[in-house]
Amino acid sequence: MIKVGIVGATGYTGVELLRLLALRDDVRIDVVTSRELEGTSVADLFPNLRGYLDIRFTVPDDDALAACDVVFYATPHTVAMKSAASLMARGVRIIDLSADFRLKDRELWEKWYKEEHESPELIEKAVYGLPEVNRAAIRDAQLIAVPGCYPTAVQLGLIPLLEKGLVDPAHLIADAKSGVSGAGRGAKVGSLLCEASESMSAYGVAGHRHLPEISQGLRNAAGTDVNLTFIPHLTPMIRGIHATLYARPTSDVTAQQLQSLFEDRYRDEPFVDVMPAGSHPATRNVKGSNRCQIAVHYLADSDTIVVLSVIDNLVKGASGQAVQNMNIMFGLSERSGLDTLSLLL
Amino acid sequence: MIKVGIVGATGYTGVELLRLLALRDDVRIDVVTSRELEGTSVADLFPNLRGYLDIRFTVPDDDALAACDVVFYATPHTVAMKSAASLMARGVRIIDLSADFRLKDRELWEKWYKEEHESPELIEKAVYGLPEVNRAAIRDAQLIAVPGCYPTAVQLGLIPLLEKGLVDPAHLIADAKSGVSGAGRGAKVGSLLCEASESMSAYGVAGHRHLPEISQGLRNAAGTDVNLTFIPHLTPMIRGIHATLYARPTSDVTAQQLQSLFEDRYRDEPFVDVMPAGSHPATRNVKGSNRCQIAVHYLADSDTIVVLSVIDNLVKGASGQAVQNMNIMFGLSERSGLDTLSLLL
Amino acid sequence: MIKVGIVGATGYTGVELLRLLALRDDVRIDVVTSRELEGTSVADLFPNLRGYLDIRFTVPDDDALAACDVVFYATPHTVAMKSAASLMARGVRIIDLSADFRLKDRELWEKWYKEEHESPELIEKAVYGLPEVNRAAIRDAQLIAVPGCYPTAVQLGLIPLLEKGLVDPAHLIADAKSGVSGAGRGAKVGSLLCEASESMSAYGVAGHRHLPEISQGLRNAAGTDVNLTFIPHLTPMIRGIHATLYARPTSDVTAQQLQSLFEDRYRDEPFVDVMPAGSHPATRNVKGSNRCQIAVHYLADSDTIVVLSVIDNLVKGASGQAVQNMNIMFGLSERSGLDTLSLLL
Amino acid sequence: MIKVGIVGATGYTGVELLRLLALRDDVRIDVVTSRELEGTSVADLFPNLRGYLDIRFTVPDDDALAACDVVFYATPHTVAMKSAASLMARGVRIIDLSADFRLKDRELWEKWYKEEHESPELIEKAVYGLPEVNRAAIRDAQLIAVPGCYPTAVQLGLIPLLEKGLVDPAHLIADAKSGVSGAGRGAKVGSLLCEASESMSAYGVAGHRHLPEISQGLRNAAGTDVNLTFIPHLTPMIRGIHATLYARPTSDVTAQQLQSLFEDRYRDEPFVDVMPAGSHPATRNVKGSNRCQIAVHYLADSDTIVVLSVIDNLVKGASGQAVQNMNIMFGLSERSGLDTLSLLL
Repeated sequence: MIKVGIVGATGYTGVELLRLLALRDDVRIDVVTSRELEGTSVADLFPNLRGYLDIRFTVPDDDALAACDVVFYATPHTVAMKSAASLMARGVRIIDLSADFRLKDRELWEKWYKEEHESPELIEKAVYGLPEVNRAAIRDAQLIAVPGCYPTAVQLGLIPLLEKGLVDPAHLIADAKSGVSGAGRGAKVGSLLCEASESMSAYGVAGHRHLPEISQGLRNAAGTDVNLTFIPHLTPMIRGIHATLYARPTSDVTAQQLQSLFEDRYRDEPFVDVMPAGSHPATRNVKGSNRCQIAVHYLADSDTIVVLSVIDNLVKGASGQAVQNMNIMFGLSERSGLDTLSLLL
Repeated sequence: MIKVGIVGATGYTGVELLRLLALRDDVRIDVVTSRELEGTSVADLFPNLRGYLDIRFTVPDDDALAACDVVFYATPHTVAMKSAASLMARGVRIIDLSADFRLKDRELWEKWYKEEHESPELIEKAVYGLPEVNRAAIRDAQLIAVPGCYPTAVQLGLIPLLEKGLVDPAHLIADAKSGVSGAGRGAKVGSLLCEASESMSAYGVAGHRHLPEISQGLRNAAGTDVNLTFIPHLTPMIRGIHATLYARPTSDVTAQQLQSLFEDRYRDEPFVDVMPAGSHPATRNVKGSNRCQIAVHYLADSDTIVVLSVIDNLVKGASGQAVQNMNIMFGLSERSGLDTLSLLL
Repeated sequence: MIKVGIVGATGYTGVELLRLLALRDDVRIDVVTSRELEGTSVADLFPNLRGYLDIRFTVPDDDALAACDVVFYATPHTVAMKSAASLMARGVRIIDLSADFRLKDRELWEKWYKEEHESPELIEKAVYGLPEVNRAAIRDAQLIAVPGCYPTAVQLGLIPLLEKGLVDPAHLIADAKSGVSGAGRGAKVGSLLCEASESMSAYGVAGHRHLPEISQGLRNAAGTDVNLTFIPHLTPMIRGIHATLYARPTSDVTAQQLQSLFEDRYRDEPFVDVMPAGSHPATRNVKGSNRCQIAVHYLADSDTIVVLSVIDNLVKGASGQAVQNMNIMFGLSERSGLDTLSLLL
Repeated sequence: MIKVGIVGATGYTGVELLRLLALRDDVRIDVVTSRELEGTSVADLFPNLRGYLDIRFTVPDDDALAACDVVFYATPHTVAMKSAASLMARGVRIIDLSADFRLKDRELWEKWYKEEHESPELIEKAVYGLPEVNRAAIRDAQLIAVPGCYPTAVQLGLIPLLEKGLVDPAHLIADAKSGVSGAGRGAKVGSLLCEASESMSAYGVAGHRHLPEISQGLRNAAGTDVNLTFIPHLTPMIRGIHATLYARPTSDVTAQQLQSLFEDRYRDEPFVDVMPAGSHPATRNVKGSNRCQIAVHYLADSDTIVVLSVIDNLVKGASGQAVQNMNIMFGLSERSGLDTLSLLL
């Protein structure tokens, strides 16, 4: 029985962790923290949990958390970097869903997050929790930096091409569309139904914090510098990321070669589904599931490779991937608790 | 008083034409045709028109239509090419919202639409009704081919760059997102609320009929061949197109230069609104209005120009643009009946 | 030229007032106030107004407002009751979209709004701005209390029955469904797209502030006490109220009698549309328009009258009705600026 | 291992059955029929099933279906009544999600469904599959008539009151709101996203086929005739039914008594969750789950009981309830495969 603590479980990645863990036989949720909701029953805030989870929010407390085998941080950035170290010193394993330990370059982190990093010594220790790339390292990690939602969708779509050196790393484009849950449960005008439904817009064109994270991963895959244009868009739906990825081949390719490349790369991956040639994955195919569905197209007329990559931003893009990391860390089947079917509709 | 006929007014562009024309003092809707709904009151089908339009659907009849000053075709392709010629012979002016006369290259049209063109002699006569490019020719035209929705959003976003030769015409990308009304009022499973809401997907990656139309317009603007990758996406909203356009500068540019270029190009255009530098137009800004809002960004890190262009696909992308053409053809103020504010929400 | 001031124009009823007034030839918007956005261009906040309204938010200032012919309060309750009196003393006419002057019973107001009323002397002076009931009094009023959204939909649906004494006033039920814009532009978790879309729920079952307002209006129509059960529901859409009203006839009725009753009652009303017998009005029929569409049904099996009444909560339920009042007060055509067609889709 | 056949699995209740059954260890899906999609892989039609279900649609074939332990009919009405008898004669157990065997009164069925009933001899044999009422009979049934979606939500909300004789059976009102999936996967204009989103309307006011089914169930609970006014509404969301139920108490009651009544009635029910006093259940609480959440309110001012009852129309209102019946019939834990948490968002 794995004893779990969740710091900051009042947001969307928090409730999603609870949904994925509450029914498991091999996991026990011992601590769920929230400063502002101390004493409130978790199921009062999230009524889908009524009858399935009988626990109250408590103020974060090191002793309670230290008694856990693993602590998830479902918090805004800067929380984990301030408090994970002391828990780690007491032997707790940490799975951080925030951005605190995703970038290996501390200065880059500080530039984009406009804060001084308070646990620089942990940056190197942290394992970037993208199982399709780092499975072995995840197994033994004490600290996991769970990838961001956009970075997951974009990296899974581009790394097969970059690993093989098939595309020009200097001209990559990721046009990404996200559901509104990516903006979190914070009460912001821009996330109101009346503002965000029945509309589509780009945002952060001048620079989005996920750009350096994606670039780091792509660089690792390519073994060389990459130049990525990344444009995120707010899309009028709750869940889902659709990444449309454009790359230029460096030599002659065929659609069939690309299809085989992707199928081979992900053949043994439990949560990456390469669709048949010619497919158009829809985000609803993976709504509520931990899957990434990918289709690869080659447009001969414009000599352009187009990869379509969809995930549920709250599952494979956050809490599901966090649980997948936990499964690997604790030697469980990687599919445990994640072998669920999308609602589709 | 301009006497108007509308062929095929049971679809979304049809009801939108009715909305834009029904309250005008200088226009009288005399004929509204539908084979299947003959005899039905138009306001019974579209209850927003109750009390404002007292007319019934009639079977298309050449004599009745020939008595009109102008006839709009709000029909699927192939209808106009079969029947417009006889009306034109009787002096009627035609505004065709379908694709029948958009492509100047008859063979290209036949390849993409998989039909023989039945009025090839009219192809040359037809004026492509994008006022921002063809205003003078529209004035005297007897036959207008109203641009498609994607082509309007994409061309308005790229032509300022191409006209000046500022970008590489061999590497253009248009990642376009459309609301579901673009698929029309036909009863298709893919357009059902349960299929199309809460999901995002690309479609037609292998080739969309709007691609040759867009390429034709871009080529005219560039004065040279262009190579465009065009990927349309189905977006869970009713109205709106958001085109995200990627181009590579051919020489050094600055954001300020680009901003000035767009402002200069569209300064006198009543329906193109160049937003301030750094803006992110949202489709809801133009919902129900005939405006195109555009923002241009220069990303220095990746040396890429990103243009964001939004329209309401049923207005500037179809019926509003058709009315704008009519206004020009009949010497009216171009803004007549179109000077409306978006609902925003 | 009517000089207009708007206090508190940053919310949804504010931007809707601006949409309805900005293009009018006979109205000039002179003052638009907002404490927090002082100096900001109104069109920067609401980009649908770009190019149509060139004015900045100013801090509320009595002298500036006193120079207006009419001042709209698009504010939360308690603002108007604190500041309208001094403007009225200087001759300004006031149209208050908030609840401050809707209830004639001061104690009842204080009970439901949990505040002391600061302008009790104005309560009697205020005219309840439901033109279908109070047109004559509106003409000469200096202070209008614009009805709430639910009260408009429910009263228009029930008063024909109550005025004629046809239904049992002791057993009225109003099951009302509202789009999320009714909750305003405030950043509340419950109004987030992720919370409010793809879900339906009742709220305020124990008591909603619109109940006493509706009851007051129904009592006036009936000439006797009424007993109303009013249950509002949050509905996953932006705009619209659908009121489903249940009443028991006090004597034998037929569907035809009811149909005639409603048609006669509203024959001359420019903004109430009684639909044919058997109809089911949809809120989209009136989206963006000032119309109320009503259908009346008689269910013989259960001897129950069911009235379906739909409005756009932001137009006939707020800002459109406010403008309708202004038109009446200033001797303009009641339809001025309001004769618009719903978008339908 | 229970061998399962599904007739007509191309609709929404069909794909929902597949979602609920595909991952079970104790169930094997042997036959999935569709005349028009013969030979197509089920996972090609429903891509959420890719990798989880490897089976193709076949033409309905008695021998193949007769080899199953249980056959689900996820078909429009009249299919089951034509073909179930021959399967039953060969020992197969039938769970019919359609309306064919729901009404015990054959004439009433023929009146509402406008068809002659072709298996009248099975009507009496059929057990109405509402486990909260008929659990014992379900256990031994060979033929289950799964309740309709509205009937499930309404009956679970009203039967505790009627069983105890606490409310006037002559004056019951059910104002019910359904997501669009209730209209099925058929390509109908009214179910298009552009028609059904951003709008709310009642339908079937003159009479809906679920009315006699609900009345039958309520009459059984009350032990006397009931008179119900039932008004369904189309709501702009995919899943969910929200029933708002109005009843008049026959004697003095308190909110506390009502709360206890409901809690007692459903204490041992695995899929009915009585919420705390004062609650407002939202349909999203049960999205994707087999739960019915209920809150009961007493409005002293109008002496009216208001019950709020929410379900997922495709789960507890159709396929989930069908599986619950199967679990009971085969002596499995009633929760098998249904103990899932709602997505909430």
